[in-house]
Amino acid sequence: MGMVGGGIGAFIGAVHRAAASLDGEIELVAGAFSSDAKRSKASGKELHIDPARCYGSYQEMAQAEARLPVDERIDFVSIVTPNHTHFDISKTFLEAGFNVVCDKPMTFDLAQAKKLRTIVEKSGKVFALTHNYTGYPMVKEARQLVKTGKLGKILKIVVEYPQGWLLTALENENQKQAAWRTDPKQAGASCCIGDIGTHAENLARYITGLRITELCADFTTFVPGRQLEDDGNLLVRYDNGARGILYASQISGGEENNLNIRIYGEKASLEWFQEHPNELVVKYSDKPRQTLRRGNDYLSQAAKDATRLPPGHPEAFIEAFANIYRAAARSIDREVHGKKPLKNPDFPTVEDGVEGMAFIETAVKSAKSKAKWTRAIGA
Amino acid sequence: MGMVGGGIGAFIGAVHRAAASLDGEIELVAGAFSSDAKRSKASGKELHIDPARCYGSYQEMAQAEARLPVDERIDFVSIVTPNHTHFDISKTFLEAGFNVVCDKPMTFDLAQAKKLRTIVEKSGKVFALTHNYTGYPMVKEARQLVKTGKLGKILKIVVEYPQGWLLTALENENQKQAAWRTDPKQAGASCCIGDIGTHAENLARYITGLRITELCADFTTFVPGRQLEDDGNLLVRYDNGARGILYASQISGGEENNLNIRIYGEKASLEWFQEHPNELVVKYSDKPRQTLRRGNDYLSQAAKDATRLPPGHPEAFIEAFANIYRAAARSIDREVHGKKPLKNPDFPTVEDGVEGMAFIETAVKSAKSKAKWTRAIGA
Amino acid sequence: MGMVGGGIGAFIGAVHRAAASLDGEIELVAGAFSSDAKRSKASGKELHIDPARCYGSYQEMAQAEARLPVDERIDFVSIVTPNHTHFDISKTFLEAGFNVVCDKPMTFDLAQAKKLRTIVEKSGKVFALTHNYTGYPMVKEARQLVKTGKLGKILKIVVEYPQGWLLTALENENQKQAAWRTDPKQAGASCCIGDIGTHAENLARYITGLRITELCADFTTFVPGRQLEDDGNLLVRYDNGARGILYASQISGGEENNLNIRIYGEKASLEWFQEHPNELVVKYSDKPRQTLRRGNDYLSQAAKDATRLPPGHPEAFIEAFANIYRAAARSIDREVHGKKPLKNPDFPTVEDGVEGMAFIETAVKSAKSKAKWTRAIGA
Amino acid sequence: MGMVGGGIGAFIGAVHRAAASLDGEIELVAGAFSSDAKRSKASGKELHIDPARCYGSYQEMAQAEARLPVDERIDFVSIVTPNHTHFDISKTFLEAGFNVVCDKPMTFDLAQAKKLRTIVEKSGKVFALTHNYTGYPMVKEARQLVKTGKLGKILKIVVEYPQGWLLTALENENQKQAAWRTDPKQAGASCCIGDIGTHAENLARYITGLRITELCADFTTFVPGRQLEDDGNLLVRYDNGARGILYASQISGGEENNLNIRIYGEKASLEWFQEHPNELVVKYSDKPRQTLRRGNDYLSQAAKDATRLPPGHPEAFIEAFANIYRAAARSIDREVHGKKPLKNPDFPTVEDGVEGMAFIETAVKSAKSKAKWTRAIGA
Repeated sequence: MGMVGGGIGAFIGAVHRAAASLDGEIELVAGAFSSDAKRSKASGKELHIDPARCYGSYQEMAQAEARLPVDERIDFVSIVTPNHTHFDISKTFLEAGFNVVCDKPMTFDLAQAKKLRTIVEKSGKVFALTHNYTGYPMVKEARQLVKTGKLGKILKIVVEYPQGWLLTALENENQKQAAWRTDPKQAGASCCIGDIGTHAENLARYITGLRITELCADFTTFVPGRQLEDDGNLLVRYDNGARGILYASQISGGEENNLNIRIYGEKASLEWFQEHPNELVVKYSDKPRQTLRRGNDYLSQAAKDATRLPPGHPEAFIEAFANIYRAAARSIDREVHGKKPLKNPDFPTVEDGVEGMAFIETAVKSAKSKAKWTRAIGA
Repeated sequence: MGMVGGGIGAFIGAVHRAAASLDGEIELVAGAFSSDAKRSKASGKELHIDPARCYGSYQEMAQAEARLPVDERIDFVSIVTPNHTHFDISKTFLEAGFNVVCDKPMTFDLAQAKKLRTIVEKSGKVFALTHNYTGYPMVKEARQLVKTGKLGKILKIVVEYPQGWLLTALENENQKQAAWRTDPKQAGASCCIGDIGTHAENLARYITGLRITELCADFTTFVPGRQLEDDGNLLVRYDNGARGILYASQISGGEENNLNIRIYGEKASLEWFQEHPNELVVKYSDKPRQTLRRGNDYLSQAAKDATRLPPGHPEAFIEAFANIYRAAARSIDREVHGKKPLKNPDFPTVEDGVEGMAFIETAVKSAKSKAKWTRAIGA
Repeated sequence: MGMVGGGIGAFIGAVHRAAASLDGEIELVAGAFSSDAKRSKASGKELHIDPARCYGSYQEMAQAEARLPVDERIDFVSIVTPNHTHFDISKTFLEAGFNVVCDKPMTFDLAQAKKLRTIVEKSGKVFALTHNYTGYPMVKEARQLVKTGKLGKILKIVVEYPQGWLLTALENENQKQAAWRTDPKQAGASCCIGDIGTHAENLARYITGLRITELCADFTTFVPGRQLEDDGNLLVRYDNGARGILYASQISGGEENNLNIRIYGEKASLEWFQEHPNELVVKYSDKPRQTLRRGNDYLSQAAKDATRLPPGHPEAFIEAFANIYRAAARSIDREVHGKKPLKNPDFPTVEDGVEGMAFIETAVKSAKSKAKWTRAIGA
Repeated sequence: MGMVGGGIGAFIGAVHRAAASLDGEIELVAGAFSSDAKRSKASGKELHIDPARCYGSYQEMAQAEARLPVDERIDFVSIVTPNHTHFDISKTFLEAGFNVVCDKPMTFDLAQAKKLRTIVEKSGKVFALTHNYTGYPMVKEARQLVKTGKLGKILKIVVEYPQGWLLTALENENQKQAAWRTDPKQAGASCCIGDIGTHAENLARYITGLRITELCADFTTFVPGRQLEDDGNLLVRYDNGARGILYASQISGGEENNLNIRIYGEKASLEWFQEHPNELVVKYSDKPRQTLRRGNDYLSQAAKDATRLPPGHPEAFIEAFANIYRAAARSIDREVHGKKPLKNPDFPTVEDGVEGMAFIETAVKSAKSKAKWTRAIGA
């Protein structure tokens, strides 16, 4: 693979590389790690990349790689830049004939997302979006429990994503991560819901298959001077009649990355916490609670396929991320070798990206109308 | 004390009696345990009550007790009947000169609640409402942490109260508890929010001292044929600018009585679960999480005063309930003996009852308007 | 009932009273609360006891109560004094025709315990020992799981009882509890194993029905100047071939009262923590873990009979203690009214007391021999 | 690096490869993946290794690699074969001038271990042993807490390692992992203590720096026909006077890989569970418990250096393993480039291997003597 962004020092680039390489199936061989050619080369050197394939811009990279023989060029590009640049970079590579793995949120706004969807469809290429939390084995188990009817009809979904790292105005202290996320020009119309609320929406949709039909949002900017919301609380309604709460927060001091979900069905309920990802609790009205643990034989095939280690040898964030890469890579491998695509590949696609952007815009619209119930904007 | 309601077999009556008698400071000596004189006597017999003081109606009881010499009559009455009867019974005893401990919700509706407040004020008697969850020592510790500024300004409150026992139509199976709670004629305008949402509101207010200024409610009746909501999700705004989520549910299958609260402040945050009441977690942005445990010397005086056992010897529901009784009894004792009332007695009063009823009416109003933000109705 | 010991201020007396009175089936009507007649009367007054029945010594009490008409005298006496006095007091009351509830450890040494057993047997009276931890509903559930073969053959038992309160020489600071427990003249041959190790032994035996056949003990006195061990670690072997670890400690700083047990069987395993008594975890090799929670319909009758509150309304230490009292009281009631004794009354008896004392002596003997495997001394 | 053993399908080989490659600092370039040349080549092909460097035996590999120019040959070999082969393979590579990373237990017996120590010392090469559990960041934090005196003098250590996978005779079902571990010819004198008890001993020693001076062991073989123990319980004494319990079990049904440790000091105590590795609990007698969480700024430099992801983005087994590899690789890199060795490299060495083997032999000796206290055999 090749990479755009993710120069040495950029946290998310290192995560993508570790995730991609975990199974020994993907090798990083080219990159435009920085828009500054020198820094790109420097990063490439540290990563043991052939200097000839360390490019000074993504445009240069797309052109140069496309000129290489098919079996020498990259099979796909991984885009790990801030989200306002995703559209142009994706477009460039897709149109140059490359498959794409792209960090989320997918684009700057919904309009871009829809355009990108059209481009992807036209290209016939694989486009994967790294909604990494759906890579966890126990999330896949949760999805199977719903799919196979173990929960019965879903009645209620509570999904939370509290973080505390933006409780102070880090963006004024030269903290890059904070700076672009709170800047409407780079992050778009939303900070908290865009950055992490979309993970919550994606997680609920991945597990249950349900879509939000309307929602009612309360956005707050707690830190003075900040231009976008740092806390968003939503009442939501799903297309099967289920109701729910979805919230994301970046000012919940002392919370780290506490994404969690509870799903209540007519027959059973479940509960999963990202910070303890190896366990999934299933609750019943009339029998003991069960704790399902990763790696065991009693789990679904989907959960087992997403696991590398035996029970009790905990897996975590990197492995979940790697599952997205591995699933995407297997589809990409088929594309590159002209094979028929898999029927139900298990990774987030451009469709998920459009859904996510539509969710953000709906929430922003509702929040602006002072939490009036707002019909979901079409994805 | 005397008791109205709570005949043998009624769960809540037994809880009140156990809580009242735990410290050996309160003795049950009279009762109108049933509106059927025979059954009242039968219950009284099992409770070792003098048959002469087992009455066939609360009216009879109030009159008869009032005729006894002051040092022989009951000091207060405990009312454990369904809530649509609370007003009349309370009024009767207050006007007959008795102090009152009353189960919650306080009355049938807000109008009644306000009238009762006037009657209490005029009577000069003690009126205690058994919002029992505020009796837990670690809830008192939480309150002290807020009061003494350990959390800084409160930004966000998430309070949940999921139960699952009404997931099926128990009210059609002769289950009394379910029957009256889902009957608008007995329960009033709300089932779920009235029955348990009020505990959530009370808990948040008790700990933080904050009042809801507006809210946006989504009520659902999941069980077909049921007349009142069995699930209620609210976005709330507090009078200091804090935002929050408050929800209650009776159809969350597999949940038992999972009242819990998280409070996020500028300096620290806290988390408490009623089902593990002996622990209180305090989270910081820049130092390790703390788990405060009941019974330890490092706790506040308020928490220590509410404790009977050393650390590690767990206390639970009955003790918390008993704390409400003990606090009320100490105020009642002063009233009976003509002493000046205590300055800050630590038990829920008629004021809390009015606040609770106002909260219910506000939520119902918002839900009816399809979750429009609704200004809090004055308490 | 009557009480010996437990004057105002003595923690354990208050626990016994609260436990005894919880269900309204037992009333405290007499006592020798102190060996100082004045202090006994003072305590009795605070407890609303008829002054005529507040005695200056247990001998006086036994005689005076025995002179009362049968339906006026106490049905049983509760003994809550330090353990070196248990034998004489028990003997006195048993021989005066009274049933006895006695705090543990039962006697000063094994010889006394065996004598007491003979006295109890001769008397035909009920003798109950308050090994209170076996009163927990989920401990009763654990016992049923073993009894009904759900665990299969038991292979291994790990039972721990760490406390930290004797990490410093409290006995030199006028702390009464610490003083008598660390004094060989009052506590006997062992401090830590005698005081709390016996609870661990009793708990394992109650749940599994297994007896220790030999053990290997390592006793340590960590606090300088202390005369008895404050930490004891044991390897144990049970009569069905099971192996195990049993330890008790009073110098495990930061531990409160963390009695816990894990039992491994051929078919399933279980785990219970006294500090979270409402849950029992069952682990399987080939299916998800189960968490059984107090109060649910799916539990055994034994667990349900020991419960007062619905699921999610936590019960704790006092209720477990009350279960011992209630079970004993029901047997006492039959004795007093000349009815045939119950077949399998569920409370610890003089037999458990003898077993406990034999366990202590075996452990002491092994520790003195420097942890040689030591055959269990006959109970 | 090169690898001996770990052909496709061998679980532990895959773990080593993933751990080694996680940071992009180590590349697998050669291997003798099987003693069957064809299978070795086949494995190498799947791993994208140059066929010329896929060898049919480790001897061939050592010779061939040694003939390559220094900058083309492997820098070190990773040995992931069963333990009875470790000595010969290590010796061969060390004497051929290569650094070694070796799986544990280090050798077949203590005599071999001591010989290997001499060979390592003579060679001047780096020898690392993958006691992977000491790679966890929170284990490193625990070690720092002890080192910096936060716990005060250590009094007691309880370390447990229960697993359940050998509860049935898997070795008779063609399960390779079970077969060699229960075969005295391959595993040596011990199964359970050798395989996992050594991890427990190593963990306790790594964190506290304490050495066992004597121990008293009870070994049991629960599964009929098995030749080595599948459960071992030990009383242990440490060289500072601390006492402890150490046990390992492979027949604790329902346990997965539940290595855990509790350490009690005069000032504070700590508790860590491998299955929830991102948290470390510190308990105090006089202040609230603390939960330290991986990735936070308040942790020691040692814990921070061992971390790749921010707080709340859980890390687990692979990362801990990778920390051993990374630390070893950095020392190896210095060796290869002729730089002075680091002063306190943080990975397990041949010394740890000798200690581990001595521990096993002491435990076996004690168990054979029927748990007589046995002085530690010199390492």
